[in-house]
Amino acid sequence: MKRSTVLLVLLIAVGVVASLAPVSGHADEDASPIYGVTIPHGYRDWKLISVTHEEGDFNQLRAQLGNDIAIKAYQEGKLPFPDGSIIVALHWKRVPSDDDNKVFGKVQAFVAGSPVNMQVMVKDSKKYSATGGWGFADFTDSKPADQAKHKTCFPCHQPAKDRDFVFTRYAP
Amino acid sequence: MKRSTVLLVLLIAVGVVASLAPVSGHADEDASPIYGVTIPHGYRDWKLISVTHEEGDFNQLRAQLGNDIAIKAYQEGKLPFPDGSIIVALHWKRVPSDDDNKVFGKVQAFVAGSPVNMQVMVKDSKKYSATGGWGFADFTDSKPADQAKHKTCFPCHQPAKDRDFVFTRYAP
Repeated sequence: MKRSTVLLVLLIAVGVVASLAPVSGHADEDASPIYGVTIPHGYRDWKLISVTHEEGDFNQLRAQLGNDIAIKAYQEGKLPFPDGSIIVALHWKRVPSDDDNKVFGKVQAFVAGSPVNMQVMVKDSKKYSATGGWGFADFTDSKPADQAKHKTCFPCHQPAKDRDFVFTRYAP
Repeated sequence: MKRSTVLLVLLIAVGVVASLAPVSGHADEDASPIYGVTIPHGYRDWKLISVTHEEGDFNQLRAQLGNDIAIKAYQEGKLPFPDGSIIVALHWKRVPSDDDNKVFGKVQAFVAGSPVNMQVMVKDSKKYSATGGWGFADFTDSKPADQAKHKTCFPCHQPAKDRDFVFTRYAP
């Protein structure tokens, strides 16, 4: 091949690879299988939707946060969530609070301990039309879980179909 | 008295009353006894510090939120908290989540139910110099608790003296 042809082939190859990368610009290895959802920037400073205590095998405390689009929809009671809505769920180990319990004189207070995992739901009604308009992701230590795990996301959220597949209600 | 003297006396009286009102401009009845702390505007949209599960008599889920000054101090690990820091603690009844539990096939998920009360800490090292620089408030249904209850705030927070009287640690 002529030098110019080689260059052209290379450029096309680069273009194809780039078009396959997630929109956010993160490397593929940081994005969830199936959905290509990455950890959203600045999520820890998002507003609070609600909190959860999972007993049993989980033994976790959880908080659900939303970006401004999701929070606005919640506060206005609008369903379905508009495109661009993102909800994150932070899951922590539930650990006793020694400080609090000293005051109470007994073990009754539990707080967020080390992080277990975090889950993300991104609303894009076109891109994720096959899964209720939501893309899902589950990260542990910033790494996405495998494809098998991600295949469980949408079926698990089916029972919340009448609330646009979102379980969490806004805490008063 | 001459008319001008009456006017002057009235003006002074108005000035004295105004100076006694809480800084926020709320009516006295909305402010906590002892401290004069009112419910801060927009607190529900503040950033998350952490979450708590209180067992036993409480049976509550709680979330602690901070204004931007408090959150910055937390994120930078700075103590004492700077003046202007405000922390609110939202206390909800802990109730089973029927939606979640249907999916799990057993009762293991609990969420924030109806609000029980909310507590507020406002940092003003001069105004509240007698109580570690913090003004306290406890509200139920937007009404402050009585003076006896507010007398317990500072003594109860004493064990957290080495963390500027704040129990809650920032959740990772």
